Amino acid sequence: MGLERVRVVLVRPQHAGNVGAAARAMKNMGLERLVLVAPQHWDPAQATTMAVHAADVLARLRRAESLAEAIADCGLVVGTSGRATATQLGALSPRTLAPEIVAASATNDVALVFGPEDHGLSNDDLARCQRVVSIPTADAYGSLNLAQAVLVCAYEFLLAAAADGGTAAAAPTGAAAHGGGGTRTLAASERLELMYAKLETALRAIGFLHRDNATPMMRALRRTLGRAALDEQEAAVFLGLARQIAWVATARDKALVEGKAPER
Amino acid sequence: MGLERVRVVLVRPQHAGNVGAAARAMKNMGLERLVLVAPQHWDPAQATTMAVHAADVLARLRRAESLAEAIADCGLVVGTSGRATATQLGALSPRTLAPEIVAASATNDVALVFGPEDHGLSNDDLARCQRVVSIPTADAYGSLNLAQAVLVCAYEFLLAAAADGGTAAAAPTGAAAHGGGGTRTLAASERLELMYAKLETALRAIGFLHRDNATPMMRALRRTLGRAALDEQEAAVFLGLARQIAWVATARDKALVEGKAPER
Repeated sequence: MGLERVRVVLVRPQHAGNVGAAARAMKNMGLERLVLVAPQHWDPAQATTMAVHAADVLARLRRAESLAEAIADCGLVVGTSGRATATQLGALSPRTLAPEIVAASATNDVALVFGPEDHGLSNDDLARCQRVVSIPTADAYGSLNLAQAVLVCAYEFLLAAAADGGTAAAAPTGAAAHGGGGTRTLAASERLELMYAKLETALRAIGFLHRDNATPMMRALRRTLGRAALDEQEAAVFLGLARQIAWVATARDKALVEGKAPER
Repeated sequence: MGLERVRVVLVRPQHAGNVGAAARAMKNMGLERLVLVAPQHWDPAQATTMAVHAADVLARLRRAESLAEAIADCGLVVGTSGRATATQLGALSPRTLAPEIVAASATNDVALVFGPEDHGLSNDDLARCQRVVSIPTADAYGSLNLAQAVLVCAYEFLLAAAADGGTAAAAPTGAAAHGGGGTRTLAASERLELMYAKLETALRAIGFLHRDNATPMMRALRRTLGRAALDEQEAAVFLGLARQIAWVATARDKALVEGKAPER
Protein backbone atom coordinates (compact mmCIF):
# COMPACT_ATOMS: atom_id res chain seq x y z
CA MET A 1 0.00 0.00 0.00
CA GLY A 2 3.02 2.25 0.04
CA LEU A 3 2.84 2.71 3.80
CA GLU A 4 5.69 0.33 4.70
CA ARG A 5 7.90 3.27 5.69
CA VAL A 6 5.37 4.82 8.05
CA ARG A 7 6.02 4.07 11.72
CA VAL A 8 3.81 4.79 14.71
CA VAL A 9 5.73 6.18 17.70
CA LEU A 10 4.00 6.01 21.10
CA VAL A 11 5.72 8.33 23.57
CA ARG A 12 5.47 7.35 27.26
CA PRO A 13 2.20 5.39 26.88
CA GLN A 14 0.56 4.74 30.27
CA HIS A 15 -1.41 1.57 29.57
CA ALA A 16 -0.01 -1.54 27.88
CA GLY A 17 -3.55 -2.46 26.83
CA ASN A 18 -3.73 0.72 24.77
CA VAL A 19 -0.45 -0.20 23.07
CA GLY A 20 -1.92 -3.58 22.12
CA ALA A 21 -5.15 -1.99 20.86
CA ALA A 22 -3.06 0.49 18.87
CA ALA A 23 -1.13 -2.40 17.30
CA ARG A 24 -4.42 -3.98 16.23
CA ALA A 25 -5.64 -0.68 14.78
CA MET A 26 -2.34 -0.33 12.90
CA LYS A 27 -2.59 -3.77 11.35
CA ASN A 28 -6.26 -3.20 10.51
CA MET A 29 -5.14 -0.24 8.43
CA GLY A 30 -1.92 -1.63 6.97
CA LEU A 31 0.72 -0.14 9.28
CA GLU A 32 3.27 -2.53 10.75
CA ARG A 33 6.07 -0.54 12.39
CA LEU A 34 5.61 0.38 16.03
CA VAL A 35 8.13 2.18 18.25
CA LEU A 36 7.68 2.62 22.01
CA VAL A 37 9.44 5.46 23.79
CA ALA A 38 9.77 4.89 27.55
CA PRO A 39 6.42 3.19 28.27
CA GLN A 40 5.25 3.96 31.80
CA HIS A 41 3.96 0.47 32.75
CA TRP A 42 4.96 -2.09 30.19
CA ASP A 43 3.12 -5.40 30.35
CA PRO A 44 3.61 -7.47 27.18
CA ALA A 45 0.90 -10.01 28.13
CA GLN A 46 -1.73 -7.30 28.52
CA ALA A 47 -0.66 -5.68 25.26
CA THR A 48 -0.83 -9.01 23.42
CA THR A 49 -4.35 -9.68 24.70
CA MET A 50 -5.59 -6.40 23.26
CA ALA A 51 -3.65 -6.84 20.01
CA VAL A 52 -5.63 -10.04 19.17
CA HIS A 53 -4.34 -10.97 15.69
CA ALA A 54 -1.75 -8.20 15.62
CA ALA A 55 0.65 -9.90 18.03
CA ASP A 56 3.20 -9.89 15.21
CA VAL A 57 3.23 -6.09 15.22
CA LEU A 58 4.02 -6.17 18.96
CA ALA A 59 6.64 -8.88 18.48
CA ARG A 60 8.52 -6.65 16.04
CA LEU A 61 8.16 -3.40 18.01
CA ARG A 62 11.24 -1.30 18.59
CA ARG A 63 12.06 0.40 21.91
CA ALA A 64 13.69 3.81 22.06
CA GLU A 65 15.00 5.84 25.00
CA SER A 66 13.81 9.15 23.60
CA LEU A 67 11.65 10.61 20.89
CA ALA A 68 14.83 11.94 19.25
CA GLU A 69 16.17 8.38 18.97
CA ALA A 70 12.83 7.02 17.73
CA ILE A 71 12.65 9.45 14.83
CA ALA A 72 16.36 10.08 14.10
CA ASP A 73 16.20 8.59 10.59
CA CYS A 74 12.80 10.00 9.63
CA GLY A 75 12.38 12.55 6.88
CA LEU A 76 8.89 13.54 7.95
CA VAL A 77 7.77 13.61 11.57
CA VAL A 78 4.09 14.19 12.29
CA GLY A 79 2.98 14.92 15.85
CA THR A 80 -0.58 14.49 17.09
CA SER A 81 -2.37 16.96 19.29
CA GLY A 82 -5.86 16.96 20.66
CA ARG A 83 -5.39 20.11 22.60
CA ALA A 84 -6.83 23.56 22.14
CA THR A 85 -3.36 24.66 21.10
CA ALA A 86 -3.63 22.52 17.98
CA THR A 87 -4.95 25.41 15.91
CA GLN A 88 -2.22 27.66 17.22
CA LEU A 89 0.32 25.07 16.08
CA GLY A 90 -1.14 25.10 12.58
CA ALA A 91 -2.52 21.60 12.99
CA LEU A 92 -4.08 19.92 9.97
CA SER A 93 -6.71 17.22 9.87
CA PRO A 94 -5.68 13.61 9.12
CA ARG A 95 -7.57 13.80 5.84
CA THR A 96 -5.76 16.94 4.73
CA LEU A 97 -2.39 15.56 5.70
CA ALA A 98 -2.84 12.01 4.38
CA PRO A 99 -1.80 12.61 0.73
CA GLU A 100 1.45 14.24 1.88
CA ILE A 101 2.19 11.33 4.23
CA VAL A 102 1.61 8.85 1.43
CA ALA A 103 3.81 10.80 -0.99
CA ALA A 104 6.61 11.36 1.51
CA SER A 105 6.63 7.67 2.53
CA ALA A 106 7.61 6.66 -1.00
CA THR A 107 11.12 8.01 -0.48
CA ASN A 108 11.31 8.72 3.25
CA ASP A 109 10.81 7.13 6.62
CA VAL A 110 7.81 8.83 8.19
CA ALA A 111 6.88 8.92 11.89
CA LEU A 112 3.42 9.49 13.34
CA VAL A 113 3.93 10.41 16.98
CA PHE A 114 1.40 10.07 19.82
CA GLY A 115 1.85 11.32 23.37
CA PRO A 116 0.80 9.81 26.72
CA GLU A 117 -2.92 9.20 27.29
CA ASP A 118 -3.33 11.92 29.92
CA HIS A 119 -1.58 14.97 28.52
CA GLY A 120 -0.47 14.20 25.00
CA LEU A 121 2.85 15.33 23.54
CA SER A 122 4.83 17.98 25.38
CA ASN A 123 5.75 21.21 23.66
CA ASP A 124 9.32 19.94 23.41
CA ASP A 125 8.09 16.80 21.68
CA LEU A 126 5.87 18.77 19.31
CA ALA A 127 8.80 21.04 18.46
CA ARG A 128 10.54 18.01 16.92
CA CYS A 129 7.63 17.44 14.54
CA GLN A 130 7.39 19.14 11.14
CA ARG A 131 3.65 18.65 11.02
CA VAL A 132 0.95 18.59 13.66
CA VAL A 133 -2.21 16.64 13.05
CA SER A 134 -5.40 17.01 15.06
CA ILE A 135 -8.47 14.78 14.74
CA PRO A 136 -11.80 16.60 14.39
CA THR A 137 -14.16 15.74 17.26
CA ALA A 138 -17.43 16.90 18.76
CA ASP A 139 -17.17 19.88 21.08
CA ALA A 140 -18.73 17.99 23.99
CA TYR A 141 -15.90 15.46 24.37
CA GLY A 142 -12.70 15.91 22.40
CA SER A 143 -10.43 13.38 24.07
CA LEU A 144 -10.00 10.20 22.05
CA ASN A 145 -8.64 6.94 23.41
CA LEU A 146 -5.04 6.45 22.21
CA ALA A 147 -5.81 3.44 19.98
CA GLN A 148 -8.82 5.26 18.53
CA ALA A 149 -6.60 8.19 17.56
CA VAL A 150 -4.11 5.79 15.95
CA LEU A 151 -6.97 4.17 14.04
CA VAL A 152 -8.41 7.37 12.58
CA CYS A 153 -5.02 8.55 11.34
CA ALA A 154 -4.08 5.16 9.89
CA TYR A 155 -7.51 4.85 8.27
CA GLU A 156 -7.05 8.16 6.47
CA PHE A 157 -3.56 7.12 5.33
CA LEU A 158 -4.89 3.80 4.02
CA LEU A 159 -7.64 5.53 2.02
CA ALA A 160 -5.19 8.10 0.67
CA ALA A 161 -2.77 5.33 -0.34
CA ALA A 162 -5.59 3.47 -2.09
CA ALA A 163 -6.68 6.66 -3.87
CA ASP A 164 -3.05 7.00 -4.93
CA GLY A 165 -3.39 3.77 -6.88
CA GLY A 166 -2.15 1.58 -4.09
CA THR A 167 1.37 2.90 -4.43
CA ALA A 168 2.89 6.04 -3.03
CA ALA A 169 4.92 6.80 -6.11
CA ALA A 170 2.77 9.55 -7.59
CA ALA A 171 3.13 13.05 -6.19
CA PRO A 172 -0.29 14.09 -4.89
CA THR A 173 -1.60 17.62 -4.86
CA GLY A 174 -1.62 17.74 -1.07
CA ALA A 175 2.14 17.59 -0.91
CA ALA A 176 2.56 20.55 -3.22
CA ALA A 177 -0.04 22.53 -1.33
CA HIS A 178 1.88 22.19 1.92
CA GLY A 179 5.34 22.41 0.48
CA GLY A 180 5.71 18.82 1.53
CA GLY A 181 7.38 15.57 0.63
CA GLY A 182 6.51 14.80 -2.94
CA THR A 183 9.06 12.22 -3.92
CA ARG A 184 11.97 14.22 -2.57
CA THR A 185 14.26 12.67 -0.02
CA LEU A 186 13.84 14.79 3.07
CA ALA A 187 16.53 15.60 5.60
CA ALA A 188 16.43 13.07 8.43
CA SER A 189 15.30 14.22 11.84
CA GLU A 190 18.75 13.87 13.43
CA ARG A 191 20.19 16.03 10.66
CA LEU A 192 17.53 18.68 11.30
CA GLU A 193 18.21 18.55 15.04
CA LEU A 194 21.89 19.21 14.36
CA MET A 195 20.89 22.12 12.13
CA TYR A 196 18.61 23.59 14.79
CA ALA A 197 21.24 23.17 17.48
CA LYS A 198 23.86 24.98 15.35
CA LEU A 199 21.37 27.68 14.44
CA GLU A 200 20.44 28.23 18.07
CA THR A 201 24.07 28.51 19.12
CA ALA A 202 24.81 30.93 16.31
CA LEU A 203 21.74 33.08 16.94
CA ARG A 204 22.58 33.26 20.63
CA ALA A 205 26.11 34.27 19.78
CA ILE A 206 24.92 37.28 17.83
CA GLY A 207 22.35 38.21 20.51
CA PHE A 208 19.34 37.47 18.29
CA LEU A 209 18.31 34.90 20.85
CA HIS A 210 18.52 35.51 24.58
CA ARG A 211 17.11 33.99 27.75
CA ASP A 212 13.66 35.53 27.35
CA ASN A 213 12.95 34.76 23.72
CA ALA A 214 15.05 31.71 22.82
CA THR A 215 12.32 29.11 23.37
CA PRO A 216 9.46 30.83 21.50
CA MET A 217 11.80 32.01 18.72
CA MET A 218 13.28 28.57 18.14
CA ARG A 219 9.79 27.05 18.14
CA ALA A 220 8.66 29.58 15.55
CA LEU A 221 11.73 28.76 13.46
CA ARG A 222 11.02 25.05 13.75
CA ARG A 223 7.42 25.58 12.66
CA THR A 224 8.44 27.62 9.61
CA LEU A 225 11.24 25.33 8.45
CA GLY A 226 9.22 22.29 9.45
CA ARG A 227 6.42 23.38 7.15
CA ALA A 228 8.98 23.76 4.37
CA ALA A 229 10.00 20.08 4.73
CA LEU A 230 13.70 20.55 3.99
CA ASP A 231 15.68 18.10 1.95
CA GLU A 232 19.32 17.26 2.67
CA GLN A 233 20.74 20.07 0.52
CA GLU A 234 18.44 22.69 1.97
CA ALA A 235 19.32 21.61 5.50
CA ALA A 236 22.97 21.93 4.50
CA VAL A 237 22.34 25.55 3.44
CA PHE A 238 21.02 26.41 6.91
CA LEU A 239 23.86 24.51 8.55
CA GLY A 240 26.29 26.59 6.48
CA LEU A 241 24.45 29.76 7.44
CA ALA A 242 24.69 28.83 11.12
CA ARG A 243 28.44 28.19 10.73
CA GLN A 244 28.90 31.53 9.04
CA ILE A 245 26.95 33.43 11.68
CA ALA A 246 28.92 31.70 14.44
CA TRP A 247 32.17 32.56 12.68
CA VAL A 248 31.24 36.22 12.43
CA ALA A 249 30.22 36.30 16.07
CA THR A 250 33.50 34.73 17.13
CA ALA A 251 35.46 37.17 15.00
CA ARG A 252 33.55 40.04 16.55
CA ASP A 253 34.17 38.76 20.09
CA LYS A 254 37.84 38.32 19.34
CA ALA A 255 37.99 41.84 17.94
CA LEU A 256 36.23 43.23 21.00
CA VAL A 257 38.70 41.46 23.28
CA GLU A 258 41.58 42.79 21.24
CA GLY A 259 39.97 46.26 21.10
CA LYS A 260 39.58 46.20 17.36
CA ALA A 261 36.58 46.34 15.01
CA PRO A 262 35.74 42.96 13.39
CA GLU A 263 37.39 42.27 10.07
CA ARG A 264 35.31 42.97 6.99
CA MET B 1 -24.44 19.01 14.22
CA GLY B 2 -27.61 17.56 12.71
CA LEU B 3 -26.83 14.08 14.03
CA GLU B 4 -29.25 14.14 16.97
CA ARG B 5 -31.53 11.66 15.23
CA VAL B 6 -28.79 9.12 14.53
CA ARG B 7 -28.74 6.22 16.98
CA VAL B 8 -26.14 3.49 17.34
CA VAL B 9 -27.65 0.02 17.83
CA LEU B 10 -25.39 -2.69 19.23
CA VAL B 11 -26.86 -6.13 18.63
CA ARG B 12 -25.93 -8.85 21.15
CA PRO B 13 -22.58 -7.25 22.12
CA GLN B 14 -20.35 -9.72 23.97
CA HIS B 15 -18.22 -7.40 26.10
CA ALA B 16 -19.57 -4.59 28.27
CA GLY B 17 -16.19 -2.87 28.01
CA ASN B 18 -16.66 -2.58 24.26
CA VAL B 19 -20.06 -0.98 24.83
CA GLY B 20 -18.46 1.61 27.09
CA ALA B 21 -15.66 2.27 24.60
CA ALA B 22 -18.28 2.61 21.87
CA ALA B 23 -20.16 5.17 23.99
CA ARG B 24 -16.96 7.17 24.33
CA ALA B 25 -16.33 7.00 20.58
CA MET B 26 -19.91 8.14 19.95
CA LYS B 27 -19.59 11.15 22.22
CA ASN B 28 -16.20 12.00 20.72
CA MET B 29 -17.92 12.29 17.37
CA GLY B 30 -21.19 13.91 18.45
CA LEU B 31 -23.54 10.90 18.65
CA GLU B 32 -25.55 10.50 21.85
CA ARG B 33 -28.21 7.85 21.32
CA LEU B 34 -27.26 4.26 22.11
CA VAL B 35 -29.54 1.21 21.96
CA LEU B 36 -28.51 -2.24 23.22
CA VAL B 37 -30.20 -5.32 21.85
CA ALA B 38 -29.84 -8.36 24.13
CA PRO B 39 -26.27 -7.84 25.37
CA GLN B 40 -24.60 -11.17 26.12
CA HIS B 41 -22.86 -10.21 29.40
CA TRP B 42 -24.00 -6.83 30.61
CA ASP B 43 -21.83 -5.20 33.26
CA PRO B 44 -22.66 -1.51 33.72
CA ALA B 45 -19.61 -0.87 35.93
CA GLN B 46 -17.21 -2.23 33.30
CA ALA B 47 -18.95 -0.28 30.57
CA THR B 48 -18.79 2.94 32.60
CA THR B 49 -15.06 2.51 33.21
CA MET B 50 -14.41 2.32 29.48
CA ALA B 51 -16.79 5.18 28.68
CA VAL B 52 -14.69 7.62 30.76
CA HIS B 53 -16.45 10.98 30.21
CA ALA B 54 -19.27 9.47 28.18
CA ALA B 55 -21.06 7.93 31.18
CA ASP B 56 -24.04 10.14 30.28
CA VAL B 57 -24.43 8.30 26.98
CA LEU B 58 -24.56 5.00 28.89
CA ALA B 59 -26.95 6.44 31.47
CA ARG B 60 -29.41 7.31 28.72
CA LEU B 61 -29.05 4.10 26.73
CA ARG B 62 -32.18 2.25 25.69
CA ARG B 63 -32.60 -1.54 25.84
CA ALA B 64 -34.51 -3.47 23.22
CA GLU B 65 -35.49 -7.14 23.01
CA SER B 66 -34.89 -7.38 19.28
CA LEU B 67 -33.36 -5.49 16.39
CA ALA B 68 -36.88 -5.02 15.00
CA GLU B 69 -37.88 -3.21 18.20
CA ALA B 70 -34.70 -1.13 18.27
CA ILE B 71 -35.25 0.25 14.77
CA ALA B 72 -39.06 0.18 14.53
CA ASP B 73 -39.37 3.97 14.20
CA CYS B 74 -36.31 4.51 11.96
CA GLY B 75 -36.64 5.74 8.39
CA LEU B 76 -33.13 4.69 7.46
CA VAL B 77 -31.41 1.61 8.87
CA VAL B 78 -27.74 1.08 8.07
CA GLY B 79 -26.12 -2.24 8.90
CA THR B 80 -22.39 -2.76 9.24
CA SER B 81 -20.50 -5.68 7.80
CA GLY B 82 -16.84 -6.53 7.83
CA ARG B 83 -17.29 -9.77 6.03
CA ALA B 84 -16.28 -10.83 2.55
CA THR B 85 -19.96 -10.80 1.69
CA ALA B 86 -20.04 -7.03 2.10
CA THR B 87 -19.35 -6.47 -1.59
CA GLN B 88 -22.02 -8.98 -2.51
CA LEU B 89 -24.45 -7.02 -0.34
CA GLY B 90 -23.62 -3.82 -2.20
CA ALA B 91 -21.87 -2.37 0.84
CA LEU B 92 -20.69 1.23 0.66
CA SER B 93 -17.84 2.87 2.54
CA PRO B 94 -18.64 5.13 5.52
CA ARG B 95 -17.35 8.10 3.53
CA THR B 96 -19.61 7.39 0.57
CA LEU B 97 -22.62 6.85 2.79
CA ALA B 98 -22.05 9.74 5.20
CA PRO B 99 -23.76 12.51 3.16
CA GLU B 100 -26.91 10.41 2.81
CA ILE B 101 -26.95 9.67 6.56
CA VAL B 102 -26.62 13.36 7.33
CA ALA B 103 -29.36 14.31 4.88
CA ALA B 104 -31.75 11.58 6.01
CA SER B 105 -31.25 12.43 9.69
CA ALA B 106 -32.70 15.90 9.12
CA THR B 107 -36.17 14.42 8.77
CA ASN B 108 -35.82 10.81 9.89
CA ASP B 109 -34.60 8.71 12.75
CA VAL B 110 -31.55 6.84 11.49
CA ALA B 111 -30.04 3.67 12.95
CA LEU B 112 -26.46 2.49 12.55
CA VAL B 113 -26.42 -1.19 13.50
CA PHE B 114 -23.43 -3.25 14.67
CA GLY B 115 -23.41 -6.99 15.31
CA PRO B 116 -21.67 -9.09 17.96
CA GLU B 117 -17.87 -8.92 18.14
CA ASP B 118 -17.28 -12.47 16.91
CA HIS B 119 -19.54 -12.88 13.90
CA GLY B 120 -21.16 -9.55 13.15
CA LEU B 121 -24.74 -9.13 12.04
CA SER B 122 -26.62 -12.23 10.88
CA ASN B 123 -28.13 -12.36 7.42
CA ASP B 124 -31.56 -11.90 9.00
CA ASP B 125 -30.34 -8.77 10.77
CA LEU B 126 -28.75 -7.41 7.58
CA ALA B 127 -31.98 -8.05 5.69
CA ARG B 128 -33.66 -5.44 7.92
CA CYS B 129 -31.15 -2.79 6.86
CA GLN B 130 -31.67 -0.61 3.78
CA ARG B 131 -27.98 0.10 3.53
CA VAL B 132 -24.87 -1.89 4.34
CA VAL B 133 -21.67 -0.10 5.25
CA SER B 134 -18.23 -1.71 5.31
CA ILE B 135 -15.08 -0.04 6.60
CA PRO B 136 -12.04 -0.27 4.30
CA THR B 137 -9.17 -2.12 5.97
CA ALA B 138 -5.83 -3.66 5.12
CA ASP B 139 -6.00 -7.13 3.58
CA ALA B 140 -3.81 -8.63 6.30
CA TYR B 141 -6.27 -8.03 9.15
CA GLY B 142 -9.77 -6.85 8.41
CA SER B 143 -11.48 -7.34 11.76
CA LEU B 144 -11.92 -4.09 13.69
CA ASN B 145 -12.69 -3.86 17.37
CA LEU B 146 -16.37 -2.94 17.87
CA ALA B 147 -15.68 0.50 19.35
CA GLN B 148 -13.15 1.21 16.58
CA ALA B 149 -15.78 0.45 13.95
CA VAL B 150 -18.25 2.75 15.73
CA LEU B 151 -15.61 5.48 15.79
CA VAL B 152 -14.75 5.37 12.09
CA CYS B 153 -18.40 5.55 11.05
CA ALA B 154 -19.25 8.33 13.51
CA TYR B 155 -16.12 10.25 12.46
CA GLU B 156 -17.20 10.19 8.82
CA PHE B 157 -20.70 11.33 9.80
CA LEU B 158 -19.29 14.19 11.86
CA LEU B 159 -17.10 15.41 9.00
CA ALA B 160 -19.98 15.10 6.53
CA ALA B 161 -22.26 17.04 8.88
CA ALA B 162 -19.62 19.74 9.25
CA ALA B 163 -19.16 19.89 5.45
CA ASP B 164 -22.91 20.27 5.26
CA GLY B 165 -22.65 23.56 7.15
CA GLY B 166 -23.12 22.03 10.56
CA THR B 167 -26.77 21.34 9.84
CA ALA B 168 -28.34 18.47 7.99
CA ALA B 169 -30.94 20.62 6.25
CA ALA B 170 -29.34 20.79 2.82
CA ALA B 171 -29.79 17.83 0.51
CA PRO B 172 -26.31 16.60 -0.41
CA THR B 173 -25.43 14.98 -3.70
CA GLY B 174 -24.73 11.64 -2.06
CA ALA B 175 -28.37 11.16 -1.17
CA ALA B 176 -29.51 11.71 -4.72
CA ALA B 177 -26.81 9.46 -6.09
CA HIS B 178 -27.99 6.54 -3.98
CA GLY B 179 -31.69 7.25 -4.25
CA GLY B 180 -31.56 8.04 -0.58
CA GLY B 181 -33.05 10.17 2.10
CA GLY B 182 -32.79 13.77 0.95
CA THR B 183 -35.22 15.62 3.16
CA ARG B 184 -38.03 13.18 2.50
CA THR B 185 -39.69 11.45 5.41
CA LEU B 186 -38.94 7.77 4.90
CA ALA B 187 -41.22 4.90 5.81
CA ALA B 188 -40.39 3.67 9.31
CA SER B 189 -38.81 0.25 9.68
CA GLU B 190 -41.90 -1.34 11.28
CA ARG B 191 -44.01 -0.12 8.36
CA LEU B 192 -41.53 -1.67 5.89
CA GLU B 193 -41.53 -4.94 7.82
CA LEU B 194 -45.32 -5.07 7.57
CA MET B 195 -45.01 -4.39 3.84
CA TYR B 196 -42.44 -7.19 3.36
CA ALA B 197 -44.52 -9.62 5.42
CA LYS B 198 -47.61 -8.92 3.31
CA LEU B 199 -45.59 -9.14 0.11
CA GLU B 200 -44.09 -12.46 1.14
CA THR B 201 -47.50 -13.90 1.98
CA ALA B 202 -48.92 -12.69 -1.29
CA LEU B 203 -46.01 -13.91 -3.39
CA ARG B 204 -46.20 -17.32 -1.73
CA ALA B 205 -49.91 -17.45 -2.42
CA ILE B 206 -49.36 -17.06 -6.15
CA GLY B 207 -46.49 -19.55 -6.15
CA PHE B 208 -43.88 -16.94 -7.04
CA LEU B 209 -42.15 -17.84 -3.78
CA HIS B 210 -41.77 -21.40 -2.61
CA ARG B 211 -39.71 -23.28 -0.07
CA ASP B 212 -36.54 -23.28 -2.17
CA ASN B 213 -36.41 -19.65 -3.25
CA ALA B 214 -38.33 -17.66 -0.61
CA THR B 215 -35.31 -16.59 1.45
CA PRO B 216 -33.01 -15.48 -1.40
CA MET B 217 -35.88 -13.84 -3.31
CA MET B 218 -37.12 -11.87 -0.29
CA ARG B 219 -33.55 -10.76 0.44
CA ALA B 220 -33.14 -9.60 -3.14
CA LEU B 221 -36.42 -7.70 -2.86
CA ARG B 222 -35.32 -6.10 0.40
CA ARG B 223 -32.03 -5.03 -1.18
CA THR B 224 -33.76 -3.46 -4.17
CA LEU B 225 -36.49 -1.65 -2.24
CA GLY B 226 -34.03 -0.84 0.54
CA ARG B 227 -31.79 0.92 -1.94
CA ALA B 228 -34.80 2.89 -3.13
CA ALA B 229 -35.42 4.22 0.42
CA LEU B 230 -39.21 4.23 0.27
CA ASP B 231 -41.28 6.97 1.82
CA GLU B 232 -44.66 6.34 3.48
CA GLN B 233 -46.66 6.71 0.28
CA GLU B 234 -44.40 4.43 -1.73
CA ALA B 235 -44.57 1.79 0.98
CA ALA B 236 -48.36 2.12 0.85
CA VAL B 237 -48.27 1.38 -2.89
CA PHE B 238 -46.46 -1.91 -2.28
CA LEU B 239 -48.78 -2.76 0.59
CA GLY B 240 -51.70 -2.18 -1.76
CA LEU B 241 -50.03 -4.34 -4.40
CA ALA B 242 -49.55 -7.15 -1.88
CA ARG B 243 -53.21 -6.92 -0.88
CA GLN B 244 -54.29 -7.10 -4.51
CA ILE B 245 -52.08 -10.09 -5.27
CA ALA B 246 -53.37 -11.89 -2.19
CA TRP B 247 -56.93 -11.12 -3.20
CA VAL B 248 -56.41 -12.55 -6.68
CA ALA B 249 -54.78 -15.67 -5.23
CA THR B 250 -57.67 -16.20 -2.86
CA ALA B 251 -60.15 -15.70 -5.68
CA ARG B 252 -58.29 -18.24 -7.77
CA ASP B 253 -58.18 -20.80 -4.97
CA LYS B 254 -61.85 -20.33 -4.38
CA ALA B 255 -62.56 -20.81 -8.09
CA LEU B 256 -60.44 -23.96 -8.17
CA VAL B 257 -62.34 -25.40 -5.22
CA GLU B 258 -65.60 -24.58 -6.88
CA GLY B 259 -64.38 -25.95 -10.22
CA LYS B 260 -64.57 -22.59 -11.96
CA ALA B 261 -62.01 -20.40 -13.69
CA PRO B 262 -61.01 -17.33 -11.63
CA GLU B 263 -63.01 -14.19 -12.28
CA ARG B 264 -61.47 -11.66 -14.61
